[in-house]
Amino acid sequence: MNSLPFDSRAAAVALDDLRAATPLVHCLTNQVVANFTANVLLASGAAPAMVVAREEVAEFAALASALLVNVGTLDRTQADAMRLAVFAARRAGTPWVLDPVAVGALSFRRDFCHELLMQSPAAIRGNAAEIRALAGEAGQGRGVDSLDASEQALACAGQLARQYDTLVIVTGATDYLCLDGNVLAISGGDARLQQVTGTGCALSALVAAACSLKERRLDAAAAVCALMKLGGEQAALHSRGPGSFAVALLDALSTIDGAMLHARWPA
Amino acid sequence: MNSLPFDSRAAAVALDDLRAATPLVHCLTNQVVANFTANVLLASGAAPAMVVAREEVAEFAALASALLVNVGTLDRTQADAMRLAVFAARRAGTPWVLDPVAVGALSFRRDFCHELLMQSPAAIRGNAAEIRALAGEAGQGRGVDSLDASEQALACAGQLARQYDTLVIVTGATDYLCLDGNVLAISGGDARLQQVTGTGCALSALVAAACSLKERRLDAAAAVCALMKLGGEQAALHSRGPGSFAVALLDALSTIDGAMLHARWPA
Amino acid sequence: MNSLPFDSRAAAVALDDLRAATPLVHCLTNQVVANFTANVLLASGAAPAMVVAREEVAEFAALASALLVNVGTLDRTQADAMRLAVFAARRAGTPWVLDPVAVGALSFRRDFCHELLMQSPAAIRGNAAEIRALAGEAGQGRGVDSLDASEQALACAGQLARQYDTLVIVTGATDYLCLDGNVLAISGGDARLQQVTGTGCALSALVAAACSLKERRLDAAAAVCALMKLGGEQAALHSRGPGSFAVALLDALSTIDGAMLHARWPA
Repeated sequence: MNSLPFDSRAAAVALDDLRAATPLVHCLTNQVVANFTANVLLASGAAPAMVVAREEVAEFAALASALLVNVGTLDRTQADAMRLAVFAARRAGTPWVLDPVAVGALSFRRDFCHELLMQSPAAIRGNAAEIRALAGEAGQGRGVDSLDASEQALACAGQLARQYDTLVIVTGATDYLCLDGNVLAISGGDARLQQVTGTGCALSALVAAACSLKERRLDAAAAVCALMKLGGEQAALHSRGPGSFAVALLDALSTIDGAMLHARWPA
Repeated sequence: MNSLPFDSRAAAVALDDLRAATPLVHCLTNQVVANFTANVLLASGAAPAMVVAREEVAEFAALASALLVNVGTLDRTQADAMRLAVFAARRAGTPWVLDPVAVGALSFRRDFCHELLMQSPAAIRGNAAEIRALAGEAGQGRGVDSLDASEQALACAGQLARQYDTLVIVTGATDYLCLDGNVLAISGGDARLQQVTGTGCALSALVAAACSLKERRLDAAAAVCALMKLGGEQAALHSRGPGSFAVALLDALSTIDGAMLHARWPA
Repeated sequence: MNSLPFDSRAAAVALDDLRAATPLVHCLTNQVVANFTANVLLASGAAPAMVVAREEVAEFAALASALLVNVGTLDRTQADAMRLAVFAARRAGTPWVLDPVAVGALSFRRDFCHELLMQSPAAIRGNAAEIRALAGEAGQGRGVDSLDASEQALACAGQLARQYDTLVIVTGATDYLCLDGNVLAISGGDARLQQVTGTGCALSALVAAACSLKERRLDAAAAVCALMKLGGEQAALHSRGPGSFAVALLDALSTIDGAMLHARWPA
């Protein structure tokens, strides 16, 4: 893959444009992180909507700016609703994003994710173990946590990006964004992001928001990855542990703008 | 409609009586806000209980002091449980409250809300877009957020109040409470209440608690609307963003008593 | 029952061993507390995983270090998944823990809990009303809150421990741990633990983590009960109400180690 520099100036513009647009992000996500995801989207200038019923998802996915599908607490009923939402999103031109939570450990969700991959996701975001498992490589994941560094999933991310012609983001101490044979790396963040449940899931929702910028989705996705990293760095300054870190993260996300992103990664 | 002044002295007495009674509020609410709603109820002196199964809701609604029905993440299974809970509540004389979340955008929940309205709710609480949609007027809501000011839904609120002989509350920078041809307005609060998911949903749970005071439900509902507004104002003084605002709101709600309400709205 | 002293030195070793092992705790819990439970587990050094579908629970319960079954928002679908998870856990030798939330008020979950009790739980944790109801004594519980002191359930806890050959923990201002005809008491904590939803449910998840130490489960369960009490005491020093208390509790849990437990209960 060809290595692209992180163009923080383009990311800064994309972040400010995202906030100005207030994209409506339809989230089909897991029970554990629904509240935190909604608050992260609100803090970051997007509008969350968790509409879950098979009777409603198709109608709503067509209205929304973007759709998130997160399989963290997948069951059959939710899988049915996700299928309907993804079909409606495709028909309406709404970009959709897959978060393949814990896909390595469980065959039901792995089969479901592979089925959905045929429906042209705008992006996929996972940790190293998830991206490796999705690409068919045996990972070391025990579930939601990843013991692998993001580097170890880079080849798998590139392969998935090519195979499904999509943006694949593998996150960790360094985030890698793979698209069209290119890879872009962003380093930073804080280890406490791993000690709060749902920061990765919430980032996937932000990636969905980013994909609403369509042809600029790579810049916008890089922007939200950088936003979460900088938010984590700022939150660490105001926290005494994971409880106050999560609170300070929401505070930080609400104030970071494009200029601050560019100042942090001057390039 | 006849304009009533906000009688903060009566509201103050109702708030103190509510705390003394610790009403048990049975919540059938959405997945996103269940935790925050429970914590708001606890902070405000009520006892939350989220009992959701069709096997259990009727038994519990009959024991509870009040029932909340919030359609934010409605699906068929939950709709069935809500029907059973509402029927049992009516039979037992338990007041119940409807929160018609995002009812404008989605026909499944709109039909369901109209069906439930036949079951004599003690109160309805929504934002302007929701109240307008419930009254049959086309709103501008994209989902959970409302782009309309509460004033724009006042006529619709009055119409619903008459039609269903109930208390209708439309909230915003000014909250309007319509009952029996009268309208009562309370202004205040803080814009950050819109940046935290679930503040409106949690207020509906407090309105349910208020309705447990039965013949004094208007004073008590005004009290909890004022409580949330004053809580927001106090929280804004102790917050750096939406994360710390939500935390400070729970802290504030736990300390505000009747005397503080009366001092804020001396009338 | 024979009264055992709280051996805080053995508990200290167990707590440090738990953190070193990072047990993977499979949680089948209620919708209200899933997020808080995950964050409490992370702060305390365990790894949470909420895998809920009947298609997945058996596969995951066999991998996990321990399984939690909490009936707070039980419905039929979840009950089926819980049965499968418990059977798989037993087969795989994964210890499992029952939290019989609000079992006194509702016959559906009471029958279900009695059914599950036949499947050799490693531990049961509840408040006084729940433990009394589970033992067949009429309690005063209205649902999730308990108006009884933990002392009042001590005889019932001992009876359940004998009858099901398990560890029974009844929590309150004093926590009692009953096993093999012995009882161990730990006093302390802070009243604000009752004003935040899910502290008891999260403690049950920590008890599940503790049971992963198998033959040392009594020491480890005593350790996590003491951890929650000391966490509450430390959080009270940094809080202005229930919102900041919950945040400070997560912060405190992340820093308390065995030496701090031993210093607090020098014995």
